[in-house]
Amino acid sequence: MKDLHEIAASARNGFYQISVSESDKRNAVLKSLARLLTENKDSIFAANQADRDAAEAENLSSPLLHRLTFGEEKLSQVISGLYALVDLPDPISNTLAATEITEGLKLYRVSCPIGVIGVIFESRPDALIQISSLCIKSGNAVLLKGGREAIHTNQVLCGLVRSALEENGFSPDTAQLLETREDVAQMLKEDTLIDLIIPRGSNSFVRYIMDNSRIPVLGHSDGICHVYVDRDADPEMACKIVTDSKTQYVSVCNAAETLLVHRDIAARFLPEVYRSLRNKNVEIRGDEEVRKLIDCVQATDADWSTEYLDYIISVKIVSSLEEAVAHINRFGSHHTDCIVSENASAASAFMNTVDSAGVYWNVSTRFADGFVYGLGAEVGIATGKLHARGPMGLEGLTTYKYKLIGSGQTMEEMKTGKRHYTHVPLHENCPL
Amino acid sequence: MKDLHEIAASARNGFYQISVSESDKRNAVLKSLARLLTENKDSIFAANQADRDAAEAENLSSPLLHRLTFGEEKLSQVISGLYALVDLPDPISNTLAATEITEGLKLYRVSCPIGVIGVIFESRPDALIQISSLCIKSGNAVLLKGGREAIHTNQVLCGLVRSALEENGFSPDTAQLLETREDVAQMLKEDTLIDLIIPRGSNSFVRYIMDNSRIPVLGHSDGICHVYVDRDADPEMACKIVTDSKTQYVSVCNAAETLLVHRDIAARFLPEVYRSLRNKNVEIRGDEEVRKLIDCVQATDADWSTEYLDYIISVKIVSSLEEAVAHINRFGSHHTDCIVSENASAASAFMNTVDSAGVYWNVSTRFADGFVYGLGAEVGIATGKLHARGPMGLEGLTTYKYKLIGSGQTMEEMKTGKRHYTHVPLHENCPL
Repeated sequence: MKDLHEIAASARNGFYQISVSESDKRNAVLKSLARLLTENKDSIFAANQADRDAAEAENLSSPLLHRLTFGEEKLSQVISGLYALVDLPDPISNTLAATEITEGLKLYRVSCPIGVIGVIFESRPDALIQISSLCIKSGNAVLLKGGREAIHTNQVLCGLVRSALEENGFSPDTAQLLETREDVAQMLKEDTLIDLIIPRGSNSFVRYIMDNSRIPVLGHSDGICHVYVDRDADPEMACKIVTDSKTQYVSVCNAAETLLVHRDIAARFLPEVYRSLRNKNVEIRGDEEVRKLIDCVQATDADWSTEYLDYIISVKIVSSLEEAVAHINRFGSHHTDCIVSENASAASAFMNTVDSAGVYWNVSTRFADGFVYGLGAEVGIATGKLHARGPMGLEGLTTYKYKLIGSGQTMEEMKTGKRHYTHVPLHENCPL
Repeated sequence: MKDLHEIAASARNGFYQISVSESDKRNAVLKSLARLLTENKDSIFAANQADRDAAEAENLSSPLLHRLTFGEEKLSQVISGLYALVDLPDPISNTLAATEITEGLKLYRVSCPIGVIGVIFESRPDALIQISSLCIKSGNAVLLKGGREAIHTNQVLCGLVRSALEENGFSPDTAQLLETREDVAQMLKEDTLIDLIIPRGSNSFVRYIMDNSRIPVLGHSDGICHVYVDRDADPEMACKIVTDSKTQYVSVCNAAETLLVHRDIAARFLPEVYRSLRNKNVEIRGDEEVRKLIDCVQATDADWSTEYLDYIISVKIVSSLEEAVAHINRFGSHHTDCIVSENASAASAFMNTVDSAGVYWNVSTRFADGFVYGLGAEVGIATGKLHARGPMGLEGLTTYKYKLIGSGQTMEEMKTGKRHYTHVPLHENCPL
């Protein structure tokens, strides 16, 4: 059994190879993978059945069981996702900007892959295919750690990814599966071999990663999303948006967890949203004031920072838009938050002051997704502010380098005025 | 005296105010600052004289004394830098991308400031003006910690920045000076109030910061820049580039520290570059093979990872371009590295496989600079790979958020086919 240092070193070698490969070669891996998934669907489904049997024996909640399931429907989704990815333009070796610095000296900013990326994801096994295919398309190597519940499915899927790499002349170690928590702890120490960690999970988990590694982290933490129903909201639209944000798919990070209602509209709106949410069997947890208007469970302070991932919503009455924004900036996870209002200045104030990756006006929080945004797919939804924010697709898996091409220019010539800065924007691609 | 938590909290309030201000208001601060610098130049120069007297008493090296000096020349440079910054376009509230997701639902990616930024910089006091003006222009708040040697100059300069903010209706606490190492240690703990740390300094210092904070770090660490003289180099050009890279300004991060020479050209090239470097009083430290060709000091293993910031260069003979690249990726600081060659395929291989922010062909490493690149100015040169890489100007101080504007769309309508994804690229700015 290889130790983590060897695993990371072999991934790094895989990165050096794939990072300089042609786009067609990387797309060929994705097409091979699509074929292998179809050819091997029986073993995938059998492995997934083993995972689900174990999960049922352990009494996993039904939303979690739903996420774990990988059947015909998920298979056809991931395969069509692979073909969609093949059709996307190559994210690397693109000239992002070009400038003539002085006569004969040209500066190019060129996109390139990041390197070796460690991704820790939750129980959905289809995430393994999405993440590894995004990394391969963008010329990166990837170390994958999925949920323990999905181990059998993940082993089969990662084996197919490796076969697809090998079939096309790449090292299979460009994608590797980690199986234990100890592997993750070891991975965090390899800061000279691994360039980026993407942890998808709870806030406390992301904090654990940050506290234990020098490797840069693009955190995908809790999705504590809010819907704020403004004084000037259309109650019918608000009801529709709250119900969709909460119930359309409860076990995902872009589902709403907290409803904030302006006091001036509460008496009219709360009974209406109560009926709609109870219709979908949602448990409502309200503050004192809410409980005077509708029959619900008492919310505690812990509720404002809880991601239920279930048919539960916390509800609070606020006296102003500013109070709603302050609540969201304090308790939210900077993921996606929505205002329902007919008032454009209220919407503008909300969208500019809420410090989240997604700020929505009159639309369900469930739209926070890389496919929905037109990014093709996503490796995660970054809740930090740097590098990539929100749904993170191919572009988030790239960085850039500056290529400067001259003919012997020196700084001394610039300082003494023998040459002059021209700073002419160029409309050409880097020739190298 | 305020403690660090209060300092950071007041900076955060400053951020909330400046982040939503008009471009004209932020530019007015920069113009006020230019005026205040001229009006108060006598007190600036007096404070700087006090710093230089103390430094001379402590026997600071002459390159460091040179960096510390803030006289008429630096003053006119920072003032023209401020006016250049005023003329640059506003980096925030720009629509970076826009897409129609479905009928009546528009997604905008809009640039915005990052928040509160902590910058730790070295002895150059002009850096204080550059950093704080870039932060103000981009709508961020800034906590500044300069070198201990420049404390008097920095106090006067930061006071002027604060006056310029106040004159224009902003909280002066949008820019604050930290004075002790203890302040820095405290700052690293304020991860809910501070969004980004930019440490400029040695590798070990940047590592210390990363090990002691959950706040994202954009490291500006050692500048261990290399010039690789390829087998197919023009020796005359190589000599000129090596000499400029090493000697044009030795105490800066983009000066070269190590020269790698292909074995096939060493016997011809080394005596030539020896004369040129000795002419500038550069101490040469060579490996065994180098010492057979020229008279120089023996290099030890430590030399390959040392940033001299002085008239010293380490020299090594390599047997291939691959060996040069491996040496650079192992010992370099991913800052800026140059190949001198007449061979385009060698240049291409070097530029694609050297894992640095700047990869140069036939040009001095001294060109790695935000002004030179046409970015206006720089807050640092990032040697990591995420968010910003290389000279980091206004764009590096911004992030983006997704603004989604709808009219009651739900995910249920998308899933049931009542609405369809259109994903039409839009050519319009976000209205909010």
